[in-house]
Amino acid sequence: MRSVSVIGIGETKFGKLTGQTIRDLIKEAGEKAIVDAGVRKDQIESLYIGNFNGQYLSNQGHMGPLAVEVLELGHVPAMRLEGACASGSIAFRQGFMEIASGLADVVIVGGVEKMTHRKTDEVTEAIASAADMHTETGVGMTFPSIFAMIAQRYYHEYGDCRDAMTAVAIQNHDNALLNDDAQLRKAVTKEKVESGFPIADPFTVYDCSLVSDGAAFLVLAATDVAQSLNQENIIEIIGSGQAGDNLTIAKKESLTGFKATKLAAEKAYKMAEVGPEDIDLAEVHDCFTITQIINCEDLGFFEPGKAPQGILEGKTAIDSGYVAINPSGGLKAKGHAIGATGISQIFEVVTQLRGDAGERQVKNAIIGMNHNIGGTAATCIVNIFKKL
Amino acid sequence: MRSVSVIGIGETKFGKLTGQTIRDLIKEAGEKAIVDAGVRKDQIESLYIGNFNGQYLSNQGHMGPLAVEVLELGHVPAMRLEGACASGSIAFRQGFMEIASGLADVVIVGGVEKMTHRKTDEVTEAIASAADMHTETGVGMTFPSIFAMIAQRYYHEYGDCRDAMTAVAIQNHDNALLNDDAQLRKAVTKEKVESGFPIADPFTVYDCSLVSDGAAFLVLAATDVAQSLNQENIIEIIGSGQAGDNLTIAKKESLTGFKATKLAAEKAYKMAEVGPEDIDLAEVHDCFTITQIINCEDLGFFEPGKAPQGILEGKTAIDSGYVAINPSGGLKAKGHAIGATGISQIFEVVTQLRGDAGERQVKNAIIGMNHNIGGTAATCIVNIFKKL
Repeated sequence: MRSVSVIGIGETKFGKLTGQTIRDLIKEAGEKAIVDAGVRKDQIESLYIGNFNGQYLSNQGHMGPLAVEVLELGHVPAMRLEGACASGSIAFRQGFMEIASGLADVVIVGGVEKMTHRKTDEVTEAIASAADMHTETGVGMTFPSIFAMIAQRYYHEYGDCRDAMTAVAIQNHDNALLNDDAQLRKAVTKEKVESGFPIADPFTVYDCSLVSDGAAFLVLAATDVAQSLNQENIIEIIGSGQAGDNLTIAKKESLTGFKATKLAAEKAYKMAEVGPEDIDLAEVHDCFTITQIINCEDLGFFEPGKAPQGILEGKTAIDSGYVAINPSGGLKAKGHAIGATGISQIFEVVTQLRGDAGERQVKNAIIGMNHNIGGTAATCIVNIFKKL
Repeated sequence: MRSVSVIGIGETKFGKLTGQTIRDLIKEAGEKAIVDAGVRKDQIESLYIGNFNGQYLSNQGHMGPLAVEVLELGHVPAMRLEGACASGSIAFRQGFMEIASGLADVVIVGGVEKMTHRKTDEVTEAIASAADMHTETGVGMTFPSIFAMIAQRYYHEYGDCRDAMTAVAIQNHDNALLNDDAQLRKAVTKEKVESGFPIADPFTVYDCSLVSDGAAFLVLAATDVAQSLNQENIIEIIGSGQAGDNLTIAKKESLTGFKATKLAAEKAYKMAEVGPEDIDLAEVHDCFTITQIINCEDLGFFEPGKAPQGILEGKTAIDSGYVAINPSGGLKAKGHAIGATGISQIFEVVTQLRGDAGERQVKNAIIGMNHNIGGTAATCIVNIFKKL
């Protein structure tokens, strides 16, 4: 396979972006990425866009050609990819594979979601479509209840980790304070997190990720093509893996470790010829605080059951020198514009590896990772990046 | 690129399948395809599923892992592809490219849609999400009105083609009479078509495709791998092209010829090293009768403005010896289970090239094509197939 690199990045702020339409969000993030890449629009050969649920939330599907029209890309093949909250990373991976296989030299990948114009119960119902209609959502389960059950099971197997969940929330909020694009830029205290509005035991509202509008885009190119364009800031994709699982929670092998993450990570590490100890920073899928804990174990940063201790020891902080987790603030505080999330994670990883992350810069960052799951970890993509 | 072939096919009947869930439809069509291919499930390396609007219609997204669970495919990467009415063909093409590039040997691609449980106005609104919310559907346009306007423009440029639109309806209904999987199995007369319930001038209800439930799946394999498995019935994909266009009708170069079709066909013909004169049969996207006429011109079967005459002369009939169009009955009479449509078109082409089409068999069929568009031809995929 040919080496592929990220040569351009762009994103909108995440948040309640009243007055900005889906078109506006695509325009802003997509144009930024193209300008950042320094390519001409006629060099772009195809477009992949992740979007989770524009049809339910805004009656807007067919976002491939919508984005092509907005970004004025002519007649390139375009399509929407959907894998629940992993939709963005799926779009990224299809673009990556098209170049890796030699079928294209330059493609644009992106993601968008517009959610905040709908009422909370409507958003909850829209998100529930990532689970099974017949045996889960149709009988009243929602994602907070599913992941709360996962937290309860984690407590049962490894002991209460309320302290570590709280530490995750505090840390991600602290990181988001340093990120201009983040939705929630305020510090939280242990007391505030643990006495927050109850959502599904043991979660308070501070254990849950945000409802966000936003878009993010990346321009990918064959590394040799990027070099011939005299690109600076070439961030190579050195590993990529995707794996899946049964959709429903009832058919999982385990609730306290996600098989799809483990398999996707295994593939990505193998391809990159690195291990967890080589990762300087990782944007991981913190849809809930417990998920960040489980991810840190599944990705090999800590042994099973040991992430809470590691987190409480500060090993996942930006300046820990061990592994910086979610320096952007994560889904928890940067925000979770679902279709854009995976792409926005990569935006952060690239920003860090370029050394452009300002106050939240992870020192000596050489290798970074993004990890994105859909539904109850029924879809997982892990990518590993390195500054060329 | 490696040669890729279709080695297994399966579909449900199309129609109002009350009592069959999305899961049931996937199970039936997917298992049929896997059995037909004669592969073990653990040989299947990934799954691509086309679905247009399960989220709006059934609150069910994330159909990649749903299908993986139903078909018991373990942890393979899976994803949903959406490109409006071309969703099925997009899923097919991504699977094709994964094998063509050497990244996989055997994949399964499919499509599903469940529509008939919703009221007509809800279905119309769901379908409208394939157009632009802001400038089209949001101001009251629906697809019948968009394509009626296209028909009016065709009349303006080339003269009234009411007779040919009627002939398309009659022919597709006649063909569906010979197809057990078809939804509408009854002949219609010229008088019946032209005096049918008015939808959008010049369309009567008989100019419009159907609202359908259904699923279809295909197993694809590298041709050399298929041969080593001692497969019979290997149908090779000799050409494939995808192209796009602006989403909105206001930004099209022409309304009486679709640029995306022309570009996709050009790529597919070039790759296959054949021309329109070599195609024995084609399943084309007849969402409305006028669309079939325009497609026949865009694909090169007739000169611009000349398809009506050719159709009236019987040149698109199954037994014409010129080019058999929609021997299955097409979207018009076989049915239009949107996400499944492109896959079901290929099901028909493969059935014909295998010589298994019974009463509707196109004699001496060697090369077949499917043509699938999304929205107002903002997405188009053309594939060409040949019996090995």
